[in-house]
Amino acid sequence: MIEEEKTRIAVDIYGQTYKMVGTETSSHMRLVASMVDDRMREISARNPSLDSAKIAVLTAVNTVHDYLKLKEQLEQMEEELKKLKG
Amino acid sequence: MIEEEKTRIAVDIYGQTYKMVGTETSSHMRLVASMVDDRMREISARNPSLDSAKIAVLTAVNTVHDYLKLKEQLEQMEEELKKLKG
Repeated sequence: MIEEEKTRIAVDIYGQTYKMVGTETSSHMRLVASMVDDRMREISARNPSLDSAKIAVLTAVNTVHDYLKLKEQLEQMEEELKKLKG
Repeated sequence: MIEEEKTRIAVDIYGQTYKMVGTETSSHMRLVASMVDDRMREISARNPSLDSAKIAVLTAVNTVHDYLKLKEQLEQMEEELKKLKG
């Protein structure tokens, strides 16, 4: 059995070190980590009283929201493509 | 000045109550919250030793990853649409 090469890196997010393992490039993984770090710092700056668990949950909430909005856009575009091809 | 109607709801995510405020429908906001809750529980089941802050950070990491993958798909589709229209 051939196992896909895995990338293993350590990243810093909001002052904590995380070991990430994945099949993506290390630059993709670093980009993801820095986006999460940026978002956590933005939320923290707007809500200085929140602890890091709540800041991380709100970061996840905002990102899931963005994900669903992007998915709607993708579905609309798929429809449009289908019409143009069909 | 007319202010856009805001939705204010309380949601439970991983055993904590959060007040959410937004211009989206309450069903969209509840969907987002339940997706975050599901993802946190999945990560927690696979990594029982992690505290909730780390679980939330990893949830945010996975979601940002999915977001970036979806964005790539969207960009490819935009290119395809441009060619078909062009």
